[in-house]
Amino acid sequence: MSFDRLIAKITELKNPTVAGLDPKLDYVPEYLRKSFLDEDGETLKAAAKAIFRYNQMIIDALCDIVPAVKLQAAYYEMYGHHGVKTMERTIRYARLKGMYVITDGKRNDIGATMEAYTAAHLGSVCIGECEYEPFGADALTVNGYLGTDGISPLLSVCKERDKGIFVLCKTSNPSSGEFQDLLIDGVPLYARMGDQCEKWGADTVGAYGYSAVGAVVGATYPEQLTELRARLPHTLFLVPGYGAQGGGAAGIAGGFDKNGLGAIVNSSRAILCAYKKEGCDEHDFAGAARREALRMRDDLTSYISIG
Amino acid sequence: MSFDRLIAKITELKNPTVAGLDPKLDYVPEYLRKSFLDEDGETLKAAAKAIFRYNQMIIDALCDIVPAVKLQAAYYEMYGHHGVKTMERTIRYARLKGMYVITDGKRNDIGATMEAYTAAHLGSVCIGECEYEPFGADALTVNGYLGTDGISPLLSVCKERDKGIFVLCKTSNPSSGEFQDLLIDGVPLYARMGDQCEKWGADTVGAYGYSAVGAVVGATYPEQLTELRARLPHTLFLVPGYGAQGGGAAGIAGGFDKNGLGAIVNSSRAILCAYKKEGCDEHDFAGAARREALRMRDDLTSYISIG
Repeated sequence: MSFDRLIAKITELKNPTVAGLDPKLDYVPEYLRKSFLDEDGETLKAAAKAIFRYNQMIIDALCDIVPAVKLQAAYYEMYGHHGVKTMERTIRYARLKGMYVITDGKRNDIGATMEAYTAAHLGSVCIGECEYEPFGADALTVNGYLGTDGISPLLSVCKERDKGIFVLCKTSNPSSGEFQDLLIDGVPLYARMGDQCEKWGADTVGAYGYSAVGAVVGATYPEQLTELRARLPHTLFLVPGYGAQGGGAAGIAGGFDKNGLGAIVNSSRAILCAYKKEGCDEHDFAGAARREALRMRDDLTSYISIG
Repeated sequence: MSFDRLIAKITELKNPTVAGLDPKLDYVPEYLRKSFLDEDGETLKAAAKAIFRYNQMIIDALCDIVPAVKLQAAYYEMYGHHGVKTMERTIRYARLKGMYVITDGKRNDIGATMEAYTAAHLGSVCIGECEYEPFGADALTVNGYLGTDGISPLLSVCKERDKGIFVLCKTSNPSSGEFQDLLIDGVPLYARMGDQCEKWGADTVGAYGYSAVGAVVGATYPEQLTELRARLPHTLFLVPGYGAQGGGAAGIAGGFDKNGLGAIVNSSRAILCAYKKEGCDEHDFAGAARREALRMRDDLTSYISIG
């Protein structure tokens, strides 16, 4: 009912990173893409199948060195229900390989509708006497703009099923300040959102001191990351924006606590497209992803020491 | 590139309502549910197929009197990719029947990821030389917490393809005020969000004076609805919370302009489950839905006069 499973995995692998599985079709190497498109035609179904195979090979290459994967729902919805099926299958495969799985859906709604999202992504659905986990991820990113009504349904499932959520607080993009930095009685909105995360998570704090309610805080705002680490002692941070978006390891270090815990840093394109940057044989795309993941781990752990 | 198509339809039918297709499996009448579960077993697939049939019959019963449907994505994701396939098929069927289709996904993200959501829900995706519209709705609800970076990708597609978006401003739920009512220099956050909607939509204003960027404003806050109508003259409102959540037609009237336009009011459960409330034969569920839709139309238009 906290993020203990994820943090244990981070500690075991001494690696505070999550690999973002945001697979555009043009990230998939030509040879792999071609084999599926030749078989099924230039269809959404073929694209989705190619992406599943690609994800599998990336997961195989990372599962013993990276604790978690994060699936960006948008890149699956792009291929319609075929893509969503690939999302389901990828979640199942990654969990089978022992990885902690975060669905990055930034879902938000209220009451019964939020219960439906919760059942879909973290919980289960009963059809007659049969129970199914439609997606079955370990954690979900959510947007808290609608307040407690949108978060409560998630909390019950977090407790019952040992799941977690990450609430958007200070996002990594240039315009994140338009609303998030607005001052209310001298306190920026993102810090207010963070304060609510502490409240929402209060009765789910686990062995490492972190609750089941985490926060998204961008690597591109190192000052705010450091400020929020001090302000929100029980809130685990999911940190996007490393690398491609310009967030460096030195700045990210402020997001960790004195035990080198408290944050998990995402990298998507740099890992998925490492073979393009490396210029290696595209058949070695998974090897290149692994090399980049190791480089990133070493980069981050040169600034922090875990456990 | 505005909401002209939707408003023309509202004017034609003299009905400012949208029917929410939020179909839980237990809304589907026993006889229909049973026929699909008997055929395919107690599976997510059978549930999704039953819901599609149910949606079709509701759409058939409403399409000549109600201008639009709104599909709540959560109730489709509940059934995994099978449910998402039903969402796709329902969107296609409703458009075929001439209805304007809003996907209520409250999606939000930034940059390339928001482009992926946009392509999925409102735009198209190319696989080789073939182009597909994965979901192909007319409009999408979105959450603006991430600022302009999360909205810009939508705007280009709204312009190119004559689509629209509704941004969450003041939601209908009890805790909506936790963040949305916070005052920044005396102005509540929901009004700030509304001001941005005016800016985002500025170059897409159509024949009726409304842009392609609408706002979600709950029926349960009639004062704010009236206030925002005056403040945001080019922003069309999507108004949830009528009926079940307690919003009455008299209060909603403040959300309309002097021509009886400027808002579209949603009802989901009251229409979908009208047969239960009416206590009629469940085989007449679609007839009951139509009767409730007519009652709602008459209730709203007793306070406003369209066109």
